[in-house]
Amino acid sequence: MLGNFSYSNPTRLHFGKDALDALKSELAAFGPVVQLCYGGGSIKRNGIYDKVVAALAEAGKTVVEDAGVMPNPTVDKLREGARIARENNVDFILAVGGGSTIDYAKGVSVAAHFDGDAWETFYKQQQAPAPGARILPVGAVLTMVGTGSEMNGGSVITNHEEGLKIGKVFDERVMPRFAILNPEFTYTLPRYQMVAGFFDIMSHLMEQYFSNDDDNTSDYLNEGLMRSLVSATRIAVTEPENYEARSNIMWTATWALNTLLKCGKRQDWMVHMIGQAIGAQTNATHGMTLSAVSLAYYRHVLPYGERKFARFAEIVWGVRTEGKTQREVAEAGIDALEAWMKEIGVVMRASELGVTEAMLDAVADSTIIFDSGYHQLTREEVIDIVRKSL
Amino acid sequence: MLGNFSYSNPTRLHFGKDALDALKSELAAFGPVVQLCYGGGSIKRNGIYDKVVAALAEAGKTVVEDAGVMPNPTVDKLREGARIARENNVDFILAVGGGSTIDYAKGVSVAAHFDGDAWETFYKQQQAPAPGARILPVGAVLTMVGTGSEMNGGSVITNHEEGLKIGKVFDERVMPRFAILNPEFTYTLPRYQMVAGFFDIMSHLMEQYFSNDDDNTSDYLNEGLMRSLVSATRIAVTEPENYEARSNIMWTATWALNTLLKCGKRQDWMVHMIGQAIGAQTNATHGMTLSAVSLAYYRHVLPYGERKFARFAEIVWGVRTEGKTQREVAEAGIDALEAWMKEIGVVMRASELGVTEAMLDAVADSTIIFDSGYHQLTREEVIDIVRKSL
Repeated sequence: MLGNFSYSNPTRLHFGKDALDALKSELAAFGPVVQLCYGGGSIKRNGIYDKVVAALAEAGKTVVEDAGVMPNPTVDKLREGARIARENNVDFILAVGGGSTIDYAKGVSVAAHFDGDAWETFYKQQQAPAPGARILPVGAVLTMVGTGSEMNGGSVITNHEEGLKIGKVFDERVMPRFAILNPEFTYTLPRYQMVAGFFDIMSHLMEQYFSNDDDNTSDYLNEGLMRSLVSATRIAVTEPENYEARSNIMWTATWALNTLLKCGKRQDWMVHMIGQAIGAQTNATHGMTLSAVSLAYYRHVLPYGERKFARFAEIVWGVRTEGKTQREVAEAGIDALEAWMKEIGVVMRASELGVTEAMLDAVADSTIIFDSGYHQLTREEVIDIVRKSL
Repeated sequence: MLGNFSYSNPTRLHFGKDALDALKSELAAFGPVVQLCYGGGSIKRNGIYDKVVAALAEAGKTVVEDAGVMPNPTVDKLREGARIARENNVDFILAVGGGSTIDYAKGVSVAAHFDGDAWETFYKQQQAPAPGARILPVGAVLTMVGTGSEMNGGSVITNHEEGLKIGKVFDERVMPRFAILNPEFTYTLPRYQMVAGFFDIMSHLMEQYFSNDDDNTSDYLNEGLMRSLVSATRIAVTEPENYEARSNIMWTATWALNTLLKCGKRQDWMVHMIGQAIGAQTNATHGMTLSAVSLAYYRHVLPYGERKFARFAEIVWGVRTEGKTQREVAEAGIDALEAWMKEIGVVMRASELGVTEAMLDAVADSTIIFDSGYHQLTREEVIDIVRKSL
């Protein structure tokens, strides 16, 4: 059943091979000084940087460079970015990259003119920016698919000293004003990052799907996106430049986590909580921390949500039900998920990411435990799941 | 494959049993004079009128009554509404009702301060309002589900003298600023209107689905919504006050036609074109004009899009494919559609709506023919399809 909720999403999307053509007109709505955030420089090698800078020049903007955003953006980098924004009187933040760069840009947007410690207030204490707070507008040019950050308020920041990787979901004031989605911009991404992104999308879908056992439209939409993702990723891993497959994956990723699928229902998010705890310990690629623990987690909670896991098996994976018990159907669905994971080539074991028996306590300590899925984990169960994933 | 497109949707939705609580705060953003549009007075009998007027009073608004919006709003009523808006210096238009009332409110919003004939310019000539045109903001309280008008720019107006019923899709300036969606507000709708709305939703989904034969995420989302709709309508026809079913139908209706599903793909819309031509001749209920001609239309075009019709059969209706040719699978899908239509109780024949052999020429004359589905119809084929529907 759909509960009470409000829905609105302010992000304007431009999609397709010509999407970047919209950048100049989108920029016209904002002031002259643009902070250009990007990562390690791959956008300079593949030509996207030059195209973006040309559009910024055509729009008459002054560019303030903010390079070196790392895969798991750190609190130190966030503080540096906020200082850059303040000192240069930045009017607009343009993130060119994947989820890490956009997450970082959102953090900078609220931290730049915040009179206090953004990490402490927004991430650790999960407070919202005050009404009337000065928040810099953000836009995005997406070059890596997975997080959905281009159309939501999510921002994950890591504090290695404190061993914490925390996600904050900001409100509409922080969501990108626009996002440029050209599937071709994702072609040059290394295979490891590409498939990590694919699993991140699947994880977002499953986190929102595996909660509640009643009937609601959100789950039907979710099943459609899961089917689209499985079909397209099977093509993309053998043909990375298949436009049809990459465009379907890009669009699926956006809708997998842009505030639609959660409407009116509970969500789980325990795989992300455990995965982020592993990320804080190992600095591993986000999507791979999720793939490494998902099978152990879902096999652990399956008995508590058997009916939904059986539905997942039948609708998403086409598992035949004849002659099987509901439990057998449900388990066959997770087996099908496992086969797909192997096919696309994600990390299957946490040990591949450097997680060891000795880290289990630290991982459990930094895992935030929600009571929103089919079964609330104890600390011991978290340890057991991660141990089984080693 | 997803083509180039832009997506954004400015409508804020408030959904659920408490949705009307948001009306007062939503109204705060607009000026003091509100034109209250509604239909034949059913909202006075079921108490919704009193609740809305109370919220308007709490928000300190002056209410200008604009009652009597008919099921197929006419150009005469549109002109009257525009005059009311002008003469009373209306700041905001609140539509309380179904698609007809909201469609009408959008027409009034552009006609009120337009220096010319809105019917001629926006509907017949399909022009867009000029940049900078004064367009009154619209909001909606939904009491009947089907058209999706609560979250799109669509507006259908009928001119009985000219024998024309024309839909215009306006841009974001005309889309509702907010919509209140309480599934309980739809409980008292008479069965005939309820199931007509159900079929209208299905028709919106099919019109967008049955075009293109390649693979795209929009169609996967569409299949999810079709499955949700079929499941929930089967419950709602026997239990009209089943909240779960009615809420799923309401949410499905909004997403079935709110600019998402058409992203990056072609669409058909020929059932709507023929249905609207019948509506102009008979003034029949919109959804029933669609149900009356759909089977003949889809059986006619099936050979041109056989693969997609087979996919529809398998995914939406669970048709088993073993031992069947693709054609047989495709045809079994339309048979399943027919069985569902009989189960929910829609009009199956155009003759039930008063369409006669003598009207066929007039219907064909006012049918706008698109070349966007699997097969472009000739005038003779339109006549043939309507004749088979009699």
